[in-house]
Amino acid sequence: MSLLVVGSVAYDGIETPFGKVDRILGGSATYISLTSSYFAENVNLVGVVGKDFADEDIELLKSKKVDLTGLQIDKSGNTFFWQGKYHYDLNNRDTLDTQLNVFEHFDPVIPEEYKNARYVALGNIEPSLQSKVLEQIDKPDFVVMDTMNFWIDGALDALKKTLKKVDLLVINDSEARELADEPNLLKAAEIVRSMGPESLIIKKGEHGALLFAGTEIFSAPAYPVIDIFDPTGAGDSFLGGMLGWIAYTNDRTPQNLRRSVIFGSVMASFCVEKFGPERLKDLTEKEIYDRYREFRALSQIPELD
Amino acid sequence: MSLLVVGSVAYDGIETPFGKVDRILGGSATYISLTSSYFAENVNLVGVVGKDFADEDIELLKSKKVDLTGLQIDKSGNTFFWQGKYHYDLNNRDTLDTQLNVFEHFDPVIPEEYKNARYVALGNIEPSLQSKVLEQIDKPDFVVMDTMNFWIDGALDALKKTLKKVDLLVINDSEARELADEPNLLKAAEIVRSMGPESLIIKKGEHGALLFAGTEIFSAPAYPVIDIFDPTGAGDSFLGGMLGWIAYTNDRTPQNLRRSVIFGSVMASFCVEKFGPERLKDLTEKEIYDRYREFRALSQIPELD
Repeated sequence: MSLLVVGSVAYDGIETPFGKVDRILGGSATYISLTSSYFAENVNLVGVVGKDFADEDIELLKSKKVDLTGLQIDKSGNTFFWQGKYHYDLNNRDTLDTQLNVFEHFDPVIPEEYKNARYVALGNIEPSLQSKVLEQIDKPDFVVMDTMNFWIDGALDALKKTLKKVDLLVINDSEARELADEPNLLKAAEIVRSMGPESLIIKKGEHGALLFAGTEIFSAPAYPVIDIFDPTGAGDSFLGGMLGWIAYTNDRTPQNLRRSVIFGSVMASFCVEKFGPERLKDLTEKEIYDRYREFRALSQIPELD
Repeated sequence: MSLLVVGSVAYDGIETPFGKVDRILGGSATYISLTSSYFAENVNLVGVVGKDFADEDIELLKSKKVDLTGLQIDKSGNTFFWQGKYHYDLNNRDTLDTQLNVFEHFDPVIPEEYKNARYVALGNIEPSLQSKVLEQIDKPDFVVMDTMNFWIDGALDALKKTLKKVDLLVINDSEARELADEPNLLKAAEIVRSMGPESLIIKKGEHGALLFAGTEIFSAPAYPVIDIFDPTGAGDSFLGGMLGWIAYTNDRTPQNLRRSVIFGSVMASFCVEKFGPERLKDLTEKEIYDRYREFRALSQIPELD
């Protein structure tokens, strides 16, 4: 099934304890599109870039069959640029520079041919823009959104309005606690779900993820990756892998949502192995499915005899 | 098979965000004995208590068929007393009072009838005392030990000597990193295992645990317990449930070690539901096995069709 992806397209400058890159393709819509393209058949990207956006980055997205009809090229300025530095433990980072550039006035216009999208991924952008996207779409089967502390702090009312229209919210544990104003994760999950989304995924970074769907809870395992090289894009890769799998199978049963969480974890685990989206450029089907099986083997609890 | 447990027997004063208790039975050997007694047939405790040790606590241990031949009663002083206060997030605690009392000169003497123990649990005590215990035992099949940052900081040489003689070390993630002097958990695990223990369990608190055995890694799931009431004894309950299961089944294959990690997690999850060892007094077999199945259901990753 077709998948509509709305979010940022950016350039990132990244420093980790293992190296430094001045400028590399980034942005939530980029990571979501690249990772979901390994599963979903039609990935349609809506975003904005500036006059500096490189042909090779267009080519990369096209090579993954990401449709760019909805990618606005705004010649009045440059592409959104973010620069950050990760600390030794990789869980914290300092933002060194943020240049919104053409992203500052991003107005997501959904092309006519995208309006019948069945699956929608709302990357982490201003909640009112997320709502605006949904207003333009006919009647999607399944809307997934991401958000962040910045909007919980600064745009809570708009965020709550958007939450009423989504089927699945994907956030991390600190965001869930803050949004619910409740430290206990299970209780926080209940509160967040009462705000709208039937299903909820709480990501716990290196510690795995929790899926709440129907009356079920699924505790997805940590993947003890040997070398996290660069965490940039891991959360968006999770979302892309997850929703890509759901769109591909067109199956939203709890069993298949569990699989989708693992495919999300798989794509995030690949993402962090190299700088930016480098590792997501040329994955093979075998690598992806092998890692799924690895996750499964790693966390399999034997039956009692 | 018989299981020898050596460690502290204590009284604890505990304050959590949910309540306060001035004096309740505690100590590593207590928690390990109580939890392992639900599995292992002969649990033999070696420890020391003072003149204030209550008859009802003796009776509690006896009611669980814990053999107390090795429990020294030192009338020259009182039982080890620890008082602490947990913070709101329950991951941190302040020690308010520590009275070693008769535990200060604890000299673990293994009774003749315990010396053929097949399974040995070395609770968190001074590493040289752990070694002294092993010197008195004929030739155990499987020795498990716990330790803590305090000994890694202050008795590293003695600790390294003890490590050479144990089969399985159970520590938490910060201890593993400190012992190996390596932040990456997988690399830290390799380094720690090269110090002696063939197998290693790294506990990650609320985030589950990692088991390293042979060439296998097992990532045990987080258990999103609704209400952690008091974390005291959770680590020792993990060890007791785990080793109790291994001793009961007398099976140290990687598959069964996985089960043992889950039974450890099960007993820890019960432990934290009430103050001190309260919840460990009257568990039923059904409760224990049901929770094992709950862990399994919670983390089951479906096969791909």
